[in-house]
Amino acid sequence: MHRTVDAAGVDEFSHFRALTKVAERGTLDSIFLADIPGTPPNVAFSGPMTHEPLTHLSAVAAVTQHIGLIGTATTSYYEPYNLARLFASLDLLSSGRAGWNMVTTGLPMVARNFGDDPLPAHEARYERADEFVEVVRSLWQSWDDGAVELDEVTGRYLDPERLRDIHHRGERFSVAGSLNVRPSPQGEPVRVQAGGSDRGLDFAARHSEVVFTSQHDIRAAVAFAHDLRARARALGRDPSSLLVLPGLSAIIGSSESEARAHAAELDDLVRPAASLALLSIQLGGFDVTQLDPDGPFPDLRHDPVATASRQRFRLITEKAWRENLTVAEVARWAARGHGHRVVVGTPEQVADDIVTWFDAGAADGFNLQPPVLPDGLTRFVDHVIPLLRSRGVFRREYESTTLRGHLGLPRERSTTRSSGRGDVK
Amino acid sequence: MHRTVDAAGVDEFSHFRALTKVAERGTLDSIFLADIPGTPPNVAFSGPMTHEPLTHLSAVAAVTQHIGLIGTATTSYYEPYNLARLFASLDLLSSGRAGWNMVTTGLPMVARNFGDDPLPAHEARYERADEFVEVVRSLWQSWDDGAVELDEVTGRYLDPERLRDIHHRGERFSVAGSLNVRPSPQGEPVRVQAGGSDRGLDFAARHSEVVFTSQHDIRAAVAFAHDLRARARALGRDPSSLLVLPGLSAIIGSSESEARAHAAELDDLVRPAASLALLSIQLGGFDVTQLDPDGPFPDLRHDPVATASRQRFRLITEKAWRENLTVAEVARWAARGHGHRVVVGTPEQVADDIVTWFDAGAADGFNLQPPVLPDGLTRFVDHVIPLLRSRGVFRREYESTTLRGHLGLPRERSTTRSSGRGDVK
Repeated sequence: MHRTVDAAGVDEFSHFRALTKVAERGTLDSIFLADIPGTPPNVAFSGPMTHEPLTHLSAVAAVTQHIGLIGTATTSYYEPYNLARLFASLDLLSSGRAGWNMVTTGLPMVARNFGDDPLPAHEARYERADEFVEVVRSLWQSWDDGAVELDEVTGRYLDPERLRDIHHRGERFSVAGSLNVRPSPQGEPVRVQAGGSDRGLDFAARHSEVVFTSQHDIRAAVAFAHDLRARARALGRDPSSLLVLPGLSAIIGSSESEARAHAAELDDLVRPAASLALLSIQLGGFDVTQLDPDGPFPDLRHDPVATASRQRFRLITEKAWRENLTVAEVARWAARGHGHRVVVGTPEQVADDIVTWFDAGAADGFNLQPPVLPDGLTRFVDHVIPLLRSRGVFRREYESTTLRGHLGLPRERSTTRSSGRGDVK
Repeated sequence: MHRTVDAAGVDEFSHFRALTKVAERGTLDSIFLADIPGTPPNVAFSGPMTHEPLTHLSAVAAVTQHIGLIGTATTSYYEPYNLARLFASLDLLSSGRAGWNMVTTGLPMVARNFGDDPLPAHEARYERADEFVEVVRSLWQSWDDGAVELDEVTGRYLDPERLRDIHHRGERFSVAGSLNVRPSPQGEPVRVQAGGSDRGLDFAARHSEVVFTSQHDIRAAVAFAHDLRARARALGRDPSSLLVLPGLSAIIGSSESEARAHAAELDDLVRPAASLALLSIQLGGFDVTQLDPDGPFPDLRHDPVATASRQRFRLITEKAWRENLTVAEVARWAARGHGHRVVVGTPEQVADDIVTWFDAGAADGFNLQPPVLPDGLTRFVDHVIPLLRSRGVFRREYESTTLRGHLGLPRERSTTRSSGRGDVK
């Protein structure tokens, strides 16, 4: 564990609040919480996923003013009415700052917390997700703007003509009513997605406004964004309403050699058992802790493991095969940046890298993955953000109060487009 | 609408935060949010139930230090793993201030948001609720205290021996895993309930630590508390671990005549359409807006309406029959205090009433239902609380940081009992 980290406090709300304040000081678009509703098999080393997103994002909403609040929640094991309502409520109480990272659950360790049925197949999970998102959006749009209009004389609270039962009856869901939360200033939460399979990309092209992705190569990233926008266009969407945010883990030093020393120091802190536990999760439950760490990584490239994130699984297994790595070497690599691209350098070098990716059309922004918290985030905010500002690619202060405003995404259901495009998440 | 109310802001988070701050200034045990995951048929007049409890309580947790946070969530239309996790997370981020009001859903307007199945029968709803609570508590207890114990050398985050899969396989639920949230300082959220049917009372005796109830008569209230504790004792529970909190709506004036004038002013503000819409909800969806308001209230005493809160349904229909009231008169009465007991008087008279109920064993505290917000709460905190303090029946400052501490309930799973019994909710 890095000397800057308070081990006892990592799952305390105060720690999360402090991180969010640093991100808001940096005028970042949003914070983002991943989520797994279950306990990983190697929890002793991986740690549990303790920050339940909806409660934690609601709590920081009360102590922040501008920053967006993106949380993950699964379409596989929620009821659409409950989920629509939780996010709409977060959106309203934060005055329009919520985002929903829409995921399907591919982990057997989660499925067993929600009944006896085995994990559904990949395609079935996405079919459910498609209908789930359709229901959630119908609920979010079941109120027109201005529905609340108190009439002092009769005591009427709202205009019933501006509130609609959705009467959804589909393959998997029947949901009749309107939602009981009015729209926030941004209309509805921003839709985010990170699935990398072919089916996942179709889902993103259909439903997403922001796509998180793991991209290690600038040309591949350009091709990825191009492919995604082409899919969106084919579905009749405006491709500019779809933002691509690759992951980026920046290891920053005041000189290049200091940055390299910091990277080596961080690598040394990765405990073998912890990295193997983490790799097992990244591989969707394929348990590498049972393998000889110094033996060759097995060739899983064509393995029909249906449960992992496809993109990450392919990335890891192909790298292992290409570079002929041992199990421990793969685990150490995957621990760096959690499988995302790692840039080691001075603030100038990191800013150069970001601008290069922007200019190439490889990224509309980045999903920052600081190598250690809070230190990695603080270094980025204090040293890289000022450079991005002076180069004119990032805002100097918030120009909007909503997440849609920060991202330059249109307010849903409204004819006005908000301004203030933000480039770094 | 009362002149002290800001109509546009009633569903704003800032309004809710301000109310909570007033309650905390009064060193009350907790705030409480009711909930219905659906839109009532006469929403134009009743208004929707917009404050989704888990998000709103998480948000006020971040801006308060002591006050308990009790939220309603239905056992009928949630997955136990999701619900256990949301409340455990609220409990952890608030450092041990969460409470769960466990309800079954008796409203067809809610059922239709969760599939095609009709509302289950009363008994079936409680059978599900029994098993639901069992699963939730097993999950809350799946971590021993002190499980998190970071080992710097190996990178081990917790002791896997102190974390258990629950392996629940019951009639309705299969839940295998451990929860992924560690216990809060109070061990687990406080369990609250308000069902008044015979089956509801058995449920309360089995599972509840706090019982909300509507009691209009002090002798009936004593009998109610006695019955409930006898049921708990018969199940092998310590009856003192079960607190009875009747509803109380105090209309306060600096003189008795001023209080009566204030009550009349509030009555005059009740719009007929709004009161009929509210009564329809209180009667579980029996639509009184279709009746002649000036006609006699129908004799529903023996009506097999299975969907309403039994206790409230009986209370209203028996009063209507006994006093031979019109539909409009019943609606006006039920609007006062939302069917709870109303006390009109000076702060001294309200304090006298409260002490009388304490001394008789009719109440362990009260679920305050201010007639208008924030004014009714502010009057209580500023004028009644000081009298209760000087009479020695209420704390002068918080003596604990957890809800269990405020209520004098034992910390679950621990051998130590916290002190600091609070008497007014």
